Amino acid sequence: MDKINLKEKLSMFSEYWSPKIISELNDYQIKLVKIKDSFVWHSHNDTDELFLVIEGNMKIEFKDRTIELNEGEMYVVPKGIEHRPYAKNECKIMLIEPKGVINTGENKGELTASNDVWI
Amino acid sequence: MDKINLKEKLSMFSEYWSPKIISELNDYQIKLVKIKDSFVWHSHNDTDELFLVIEGNMKIEFKDRTIELNEGEMYVVPKGIEHRPYAKNECKIMLIEPKGVINTGENKGELTASNDVWI
Repeated sequence: MDKINLKEKLSMFSEYWSPKIISELNDYQIKLVKIKDSFVWHSHNDTDELFLVIEGNMKIEFKDRTIELNEGEMYVVPKGIEHRPYAKNECKIMLIEPKGVINTGENKGELTASNDVWI
Repeated sequence: MDKINLKEKLSMFSEYWSPKIISELNDYQIKLVKIKDSFVWHSHNDTDELFLVIEGNMKIEFKDRTIELNEGEMYVVPKGIEHRPYAKNECKIMLIEPKGVINTGENKGELTASNDVWI
């Protein structure tokens, strides 16, 4: 494989809430996603999920609190915990999770995206 | 857990080649490490290893080529592949790999660091 430049990869797509796979690490995948506005409440019952903000600012709402992540900040949402990502303005994020995870977790709907798109 | 600010965590230690765990993702760990000069040739026979440059510039030498990583660039070294990280000047890196990985892999020696230090 070649090295991966995160900002170069991020320049290759513009749609929101549609994670793109950029690499695999054993049975895990590294994904980039652009987000804006509110996502749906969901959980991933089988896995934790890592969020790292590459550019911008986002929030992750939980049922009992909300955390705010700025550039260079990360958070691991524990498996089974309901959460809702939100960004007032466009925010660019790296996600790390096992291969096959669906973005809307247990709450499939119109925001459910393909989990197999590479850039 | 609280959110993690990478630069804040990086300000908490100064020694080289001594990875610090900042978070876990299922059975994987997210580590930060500062590097300078050459490491030892080694491989990890059971796992891939992700390098992401947070600040600075590094190289990863392989037996047949060398790649250079700048800030915001990443590379996944495949399992079993001999490699040697190098940085002319201090470079700050995020590593992601399964819990329990030893920094010098199959080549234990004086640069072998504890694999269980959290910051």
